[in-house]
Parts: sequence; structure tokens; C-alpha cells
Amino acid sequence: MTQPIITLLTDFGTRDSYAAQMKGVILGINPRALVVDITHEIEPQAIMQGAMCLDEAFDAFPAGTIHVVIVDPDVGTTRRRIAAEIGSQRYVGPDNGLLTFLARRHAIQRAHHLNATQFHRHPVCATFHGRDLFSPVAAHWSLGADLSEFGDPVTAPLAELRVPKVDKQERELLGEVLAIDRFGNIISNISGSDLPLEFPATIFTRIAGQQLNRLSSYYSQHPSGALLALIGSSGRLEVARNQGNAAETLQVTIGDEVYVKW
Amino acid sequence: MTQPIITLLTDFGTRDSYAAQMKGVILGINPRALVVDITHEIEPQAIMQGAMCLDEAFDAFPAGTIHVVIVDPDVGTTRRRIAAEIGSQRYVGPDNGLLTFLARRHAIQRAHHLNATQFHRHPVCATFHGRDLFSPVAAHWSLGADLSEFGDPVTAPLAELRVPKVDKQERELLGEVLAIDRFGNIISNISGSDLPLEFPATIFTRIAGQQLNRLSSYYSQHPSGALLALIGSSGRLEVARNQGNAAETLQVTIGDEVYVKW
Amino acid sequence: MTQPIITLLTDFGTRDSYAAQMKGVILGINPRALVVDITHEIEPQAIMQGAMCLDEAFDAFPAGTIHVVIVDPDVGTTRRRIAAEIGSQRYVGPDNGLLTFLARRHAIQRAHHLNATQFHRHPVCATFHGRDLFSPVAAHWSLGADLSEFGDPVTAPLAELRVPKVDKQERELLGEVLAIDRFGNIISNISGSDLPLEFPATIFTRIAGQQLNRLSSYYSQHPSGALLALIGSSGRLEVARNQGNAAETLQVTIGDEVYVKW
Repeated sequence: MTQPIITLLTDFGTRDSYAAQMKGVILGINPRALVVDITHEIEPQAIMQGAMCLDEAFDAFPAGTIHVVIVDPDVGTTRRRIAAEIGSQRYVGPDNGLLTFLARRHAIQRAHHLNATQFHRHPVCATFHGRDLFSPVAAHWSLGADLSEFGDPVTAPLAELRVPKVDKQERELLGEVLAIDRFGNIISNISGSDLPLEFPATIFTRIAGQQLNRLSSYYSQHPSGALLALIGSSGRLEVARNQGNAAETLQVTIGDEVYVKW
Repeated sequence: MTQPIITLLTDFGTRDSYAAQMKGVILGINPRALVVDITHEIEPQAIMQGAMCLDEAFDAFPAGTIHVVIVDPDVGTTRRRIAAEIGSQRYVGPDNGLLTFLARRHAIQRAHHLNATQFHRHPVCATFHGRDLFSPVAAHWSLGADLSEFGDPVTAPLAELRVPKVDKQERELLGEVLAIDRFGNIISNISGSDLPLEFPATIFTRIAGQQLNRLSSYYSQHPSGALLALIGSSGRLEVARNQGNAAETLQVTIGDEVYVKW
Repeated sequence: MTQPIITLLTDFGTRDSYAAQMKGVILGINPRALVVDITHEIEPQAIMQGAMCLDEAFDAFPAGTIHVVIVDPDVGTTRRRIAAEIGSQRYVGPDNGLLTFLARRHAIQRAHHLNATQFHRHPVCATFHGRDLFSPVAAHWSLGADLSEFGDPVTAPLAELRVPKVDKQERELLGEVLAIDRFGNIISNISGSDLPLEFPATIFTRIAGQQLNRLSSYYSQHPSGALLALIGSSGRLEVARNQGNAAETLQVTIGDEVYVKW
């Protein structure tokens, strides 16, 4: 029998022991759980960044994976705590918009509140639901509990973040920068599916006053230091610099405009 | 049969391969060990920070867990290397004060020196006992060796750090800042148990010239940006800023005074 | 039956989900794989640093371990993608010099191209072979596939980095700084085996205008703050500062001269 996978995606960092405490609690309940870190380096309270990260990582994991996602500035308030079945995988965390992107791509089959207190650690610390409430629920879920045991069904719609929309005209798009990764690759809110990919050579991208005259396939297709646009591994239009840092070069930040025409 | 858990808590960072080398050695001896990182980001040689981190994480782990703790500025000297049974869990590391906090909360049942060289990797590198001495001992312990096999019993008292004491008067306390976490939460040496928690509304906290007029329960109980005092997830009095960084706002550093009255 | 170990060594960082996506893919193919991070903090595109890190960590892992190493600035080009048997362990990654150091210490028994596309994830993203090509190959290898199934044998020599050579004279050596670790220890390209270690007291090391008059055994052999030279845990001559940061103190950077005489 294979080990059930539980991933952790938080803004706890790895300097303090918060993430490790969650692992200890999970393993105390289900010693066979396989805990995998997605990241703990979401910027403190950055729900949007957490939602994007979950969306990017989600499809790489096998069916049955339980994703515990804790970017939870409202811990302790009446914000809803939920568990949900999404496609063939599972989510445990606050209902604060962390599912915004995922819910556009995968059906949320069922969602339940986490008000059945027998699945919580006691006492529940009002500032650390990650350890005392979400981790134990995930561990019990991985042991075979049914979602419905954790609490009442969620009936109202889930929280959703305001996501910057792409302005679509005939043969042109106006989007914006959604994220910048470790390499300085500039990731936009424009999807590959928004673009006529059969003609990559004729697609122009403009950002921070720079125009890129074609869509490339990979970074080192151009000389070292060259700027380029491509569809990245998450399916979004990216602007990168071969063997360099595009965001630093272009002085681009999240929210800046990205314009495409063809 | 469940996998034995071995945690690692070090100041090795994660940029170099030191922590990974420890994992390789452990898995070479006990391929069934489940290695969990507590953190590797203790500041270099910061024994006090390591002792606090261990204390905070300890109770989240199940009985039988072996904690390998390496903040070891005196590696190579005659400082004692020990293994100890603490409550239902276990410790492997230098005897340099890393157990200071834990030993106040849990009985240290037995402690042994690590002088039985057949449990070490050979040759033992004088600058990397984490890999060549502590990791192999932990792995053999997880395989079922008895503590007494690792060396002679420790008879002298274990090393203890000088911990700043809380000055307790009737209805007031003077403590100090012990740590600052990733979120900028300011963690003091004052315990929740030092305070009359039945009356949180009447407890005043003063720090860096700011007075906080009640004890709160969670961060977002106040408007975004507000400063507040609460008992944090480790049971200590904390000063935090809702959706902000209290330590930066107040320009507080470790060792600064924290005053409480009621 | 023990779990097959797959290590990851990349320049992906841990803030983005790239490393986690690799783990998800591996576990989807072989749920029994034990994935161990060596590091994800190689500087972006720093092949030399990746090669050194792999070399240092390699021997700590047990026979059969599969090391997936992704520092791959030329992802998407025709640079070769290989899997290789090295000593009793295994390598999966680009052929761009990452094996430079390892190949001097261990025989590379067999190496194969990764052109058998049935072992890849489809479609293969041109910017993320780590997820779509190297991880699936490693997972299938850990399940028992033979190296020869992954593609054609490599016949031409593997890529090799230009490594700064030690200039050896009678009773003196001129080397250079190869790396600086988290503690500020300065790691040179001079091996312990280059030195007459039977007489450590008579070995002089000069770096950044400072002369160190003996070879020490461990850091705290000297007073706090003292500079010292020793053979570090990777077998290389290091210059360190007891309870301090030698690289900052001496303002040393990679490539600076290290001179030894005896």
C-alpha cells in the first residue's frame, strides 16, 4: 500500500519551527503519511502568491494528494476553515481565496467546514490553526476519514480573489505582471491559450518600454543576456533574460503592464 | 511497523550540502528512518536560538522521535557529545546548553556520552561531528540500539545556558525579548503561566515606549496595522502587528525590555 | 524492501514550486521513492557550484542512490541529457560539466542519452526538463528500469568544466578559492592529499595578505575570532575564523589566491 501524500504550502518560512511542528502533528496521527513541502516562503500574508503557487504545483501531484495551504492572515477570526475535493486531489486550509486559480481549472466537487472538533488538536491555539486544526484534519483524511465527517457542507460560494483581467482586443492583449520567480523571470497573467501559438514568430510583446519581436521556445535560444518572451512551464507568457535576471534588467514589478499583439 | 522519526535542527543552512550529508549517512545505516527537518537556519553558532527552537518544536513530535541538534561552535574540542532520553522522546547532540529550556519542562531520564566508537563513521572529521558521529548514533538508535551502548553514563550535570530571568513583582513583570520570528512577532521570556489569564482585558504590556492596553487572542482581532499583545503558539507573551511586522515597526531587538502589569 | 533514494540538487530555490513539482512527478511514477533534497540554492546557472556540491555530498549517500542534478542554463537546446552509473551510485541531469569533480574520484561505468521518449512526461516543456524529463527518468530508474532503456549509449567524452589547477612546486602550492560556505569558511582547490599532513605544525598558509602559521584540526582550537587553516570535511584546505566569518573578515572572494608552503 502506498503512502498517502500530504503537501504543505505556507508563509511560515523555514527559520522558525512552525512548519516542522505541523509535520510532527501529522506524523503523530498518521505515521505513514509522506509530507512534501511545496514551499514555506510565500511572502507573509500574500494570499495571491499562495494561490498562484498552489495552482502551478497542483497538477504535478498524483491523485489523492492532500494539499495543506496556510496563508492565513485572518487566523482566529470567523473566516471559514475548509476541506475540499478538487479534481482527483484534495485541499485543506482557510477559505480566503487560495483556491481562486485552481477553481477555474478543476471542478470543486465537495467542500466542508472544519467544525467537527474531534479532529482538532486540543486546545486549538488561536494563532496557529496550521498546527492544531488544519494538520490534524489532513492527517485524519489521509487515514481514510470521509470529507463529510469534518463538518457541515459549505453551501455559500468559496472566497475568490480579485485577479487582474487580461484586456482582449482583436489581435492584441493587455495584461500585467503576476509574479517574478527566483531567476527573475517575469510571469504575466496572459495564458498561452490566449495567443495564436501556431505563429509564434509573429507575436510581439512589449514590457517596460522594451519590445520583443517573437515568441521563443526556451531561454538559451538567444545569446547570453538577451531578453525574450516565451510560454513558461506554468502555461503563462513570461519575459526572461537568457542567463540573466529579466526583472532586474527591466526594473519590472508585480502589476506592471504587459502588452501583446500579432 | 511505522518508520522511526529522526529530526534535524542545525545551523548548517540549506545552501551547502552539510544537512544532506547527514541524511545520506542516516539512510545508509537505517534506510527506514524518516528524516524531518526542523530547521537548518539557526544563526551560525547561536546555541540560545537553537535551544528555543528545539523547545518549541519538541512537543509536536510523537513519542520515540530522535532529535539531532547541531549548533556546535566547539566541535572537535572535549565538549561532551551526548544522547539523552527526555520525556518520551530522544536527543542527540553536543552538551552545550541546547537542552536548557527543554529540561525545565521534561525530565531527562538518562544521558550517555557518545564514546563507543563502533557507532561512529570512520574517520571522524574533527569539524563535522554532525555527519560522522551524531548522525550515525541517531541512526543506530532508531534501529533499536539501547542508549547505554553508545557510551558511559553522564554523571555531571548537563550544560545550561544563562537564560534572562523574568523579574516578578506583585501585579507586574519585567522580562525581555528572547526571539523575533519570520513575521516580526516579538517573543518574550514571559510565559502565559506568569499572567492572570482569567482577566486578559486588564493586562497592560509596555515595549519600546508603546503601551498595549489588553491581551488579545489572535492577530486579526484588531485593524490591519494595529499592535497587539497575546500569548503565542509557544505559550510565551508576544507583541505582534496585525498584517505587519512588529519588530520593524518598534525597532525592537533581542534583549530589549518587556514590561507587564495588571 | 527499502525505499529507493532519489536526491535533488538544483538552482531552483525553494520560494517557487519548481522543486516540489519534480517531487510530485517522481511520486506519481514511483510512490515508494524517498526524495531527499541536497540543495536548491545553487546560484542560478552556477554549474561549477553545482558540480562541487554534488561532489561533496555524493559519498555520504548509500549505494543505489539516484542523484538528479539540475543546473541547466542550456535547457531546451541540443545539450545532451544523460543518465550515468558512477561508482555504486547514479546520476541524472544535463551533460554540462556537473560531473567534473565526481568523475575524477569515481569511475563512470556507463552513460546513456535520454532519448527514449516513453520515459518522459508529455508534452515536455522546453524550459522545464527537470520536471518533464529528468524526474520521470529518475523515477523509472528507481522502479528497476535498466539504464540502457533510456536511450543510446554516450560515446563521446562527457563535458568537463575548466577547473583552476593548483600550481605545485617543491614545498609550496599556489591554489585559489573555490567556494565560500554559509559560515564564511573559505574553501580552496588545494586537497589535503597535496599536503604533507604528517607535519601540520610546519605548514604555512597565506591568503589576502594574512599568514597562518600552522594547520589546525578544528575551529575552536584557537581563541574566538582567530583565523586558522585546516582540512575541512570535504578534504580541502579551508581558511576559517573561529566563531566568525573568515570570508567577510578577509574580504575574500571566489578566485582569490591561496598560497601554501612548508
